[in-house]
Amino acid sequence: MELILGVDLGGTNIVVGAVGADNGKVHGLNQRRTPVEQGPDGVIDRISAMIHKCQADVREELGDEHEILGIGIGSPGPLNRKTGVVITTPNLRWRNVPIRDRVSEAAGLPAALDNDANCAILGESWLGAAQGARYVVGLTIGTGIGGGIVLDGEVFHGAVDVAGEFGHMTINIGGRRCGCGNYGCLEAYASGPAIAARAVEGIEANSETVLPELVDGDLSQITAETVYRAATEGDGLALDVVKDTARFLGAGVATLVNIFNPEVVVVCGGVTKAGPGLFGPLVDEVKRRAFKPGWESCRVVPGELPGIAGVLGAAGTYKIEHLGGL
Amino acid sequence: MELILGVDLGGTNIVVGAVGADNGKVHGLNQRRTPVEQGPDGVIDRISAMIHKCQADVREELGDEHEILGIGIGSPGPLNRKTGVVITTPNLRWRNVPIRDRVSEAAGLPAALDNDANCAILGESWLGAAQGARYVVGLTIGTGIGGGIVLDGEVFHGAVDVAGEFGHMTINIGGRRCGCGNYGCLEAYASGPAIAARAVEGIEANSETVLPELVDGDLSQITAETVYRAATEGDGLALDVVKDTARFLGAGVATLVNIFNPEVVVVCGGVTKAGPGLFGPLVDEVKRRAFKPGWESCRVVPGELPGIAGVLGAAGTYKIEHLGGL
Repeated sequence: MELILGVDLGGTNIVVGAVGADNGKVHGLNQRRTPVEQGPDGVIDRISAMIHKCQADVREELGDEHEILGIGIGSPGPLNRKTGVVITTPNLRWRNVPIRDRVSEAAGLPAALDNDANCAILGESWLGAAQGARYVVGLTIGTGIGGGIVLDGEVFHGAVDVAGEFGHMTINIGGRRCGCGNYGCLEAYASGPAIAARAVEGIEANSETVLPELVDGDLSQITAETVYRAATEGDGLALDVVKDTARFLGAGVATLVNIFNPEVVVVCGGVTKAGPGLFGPLVDEVKRRAFKPGWESCRVVPGELPGIAGVLGAAGTYKIEHLGGL
Repeated sequence: MELILGVDLGGTNIVVGAVGADNGKVHGLNQRRTPVEQGPDGVIDRISAMIHKCQADVREELGDEHEILGIGIGSPGPLNRKTGVVITTPNLRWRNVPIRDRVSEAAGLPAALDNDANCAILGESWLGAAQGARYVVGLTIGTGIGGGIVLDGEVFHGAVDVAGEFGHMTINIGGRRCGCGNYGCLEAYASGPAIAARAVEGIEANSETVLPELVDGDLSQITAETVYRAATEGDGLALDVVKDTARFLGAGVATLVNIFNPEVVVVCGGVTKAGPGLFGPLVDEVKRRAFKPGWESCRVVPGELPGIAGVLGAAGTYKIEHLGGL
């Protein structure tokens, strides 16, 4: 059995697993905190240790009846796939880290590198919510909003590997300031922190809500998850914030439908935990905004592989680069 | 010499030319008004007559030393490329017109059909402003705003041939009503009629301007061209309208840069007549809004083949479909 190790490096956690090169089955999955404070050396040491553990777990599970071909790494970017260097990552506070070659040398295996959001959408295209579709775009919604474009089973990277920045579509030209410095980006409205910020603004405008109670009065503790929980319990402000989130995301997804005419739009990340109160209105907004032939030929669906799409897609990246396709 | 006939069908004019299959050189170009009022039969008769005239002109110019391989047709859409049927076109008021086969039968030549904006951007990619680039997106700005995506020398069509509707990106979520029924589309701000409408609103709000004089007081006669002319003469309101147009288009182009990371964005259509007062600020807005690696690796340029890109791209469509590529 041939396996590819997938490494999903995030600002909070690292996930590593061994992925069947043929069937995409995941073995020896393990997850640990990202030791951001230890800098690139500490993070790469931890990845190496996790790879080691994954290899041991796989040996225990499968005996010697397997071969590990190489390593695929998904990392926040922007990054250069050709040189294997992460150029910058605000979350990790890295600059020009040659992560691909360092992980490769430590593990004694060839490696490939791609953007984390690209990997997640590739994973969903390989064996998840977009399996079998030729034209797939997807959003990963968390601290930021990332995106990925998968055409005919391969990630579309653009001229210098920075395609797919769906979080930075302008949806409201004079609107909220975004972390990227721009105004009115989708991310400024619908990322986890933006959802929390809109809820806090509602509280400060004296909206009727149980949200402060849920965080013992410390509004800085309100997260998107707090808002979803309150919405599930029928809280008026939380329901409004979720409804607006659906509208913003719906406008972004409608733009993607009008631009790509995809078969599937996959929406991944914490926002999928918001439940039907978000997803139904989101799809309604897409239908209101996108051209009919576009939305009629497109499924807008939540990711089916939370926690694992990134590992799968990272391995898929290696497979495409070294074995010629998924 | 092998030639392909290119037919560029627009709501106002039809342009026909014979395009060198190898070198893209255009022979026997002729243009006539689109007889919209005569319905599909009248329009198709006129196309047939123009094809006939083009063939005669080419015979006169080149003698018998040529062969016409087939016909490429660019038409407003949405349309179905497989069946060759134009589904609807608001400008022509058509429904389900099998234009490809009817033109093919009338001329006794095989034919291919694609969307007019796709053809224009393909033409610019073949021999115009985006020649030699692998990743190209483009806007055609006129009565509406169309778009085209050309990857590795071929148009990207999406699932059911409706990809590239760049005019219907949401850039201002609660904003102006668009002809598509949606609110805040790029087209609602930066198409020719939208530019004129914003100027008229400025006049009605008592802005200082010479615009009414230019149309003898009949504000319904103000077009985007009137606004450009007044701006060139230093008119304050017209300059503001052009500046805002640059901002809206810049936000749209920045979104495309963040999504596609293209090597070239081509901006085609009447708007290129607005002069440097539009294009400079447009590029500045892109730099303000798009990620640096994206805009650093991208040229934003006006189309270089006004009046001919559509014919060239229509012939290119035939070439790709029947000869395997440009």
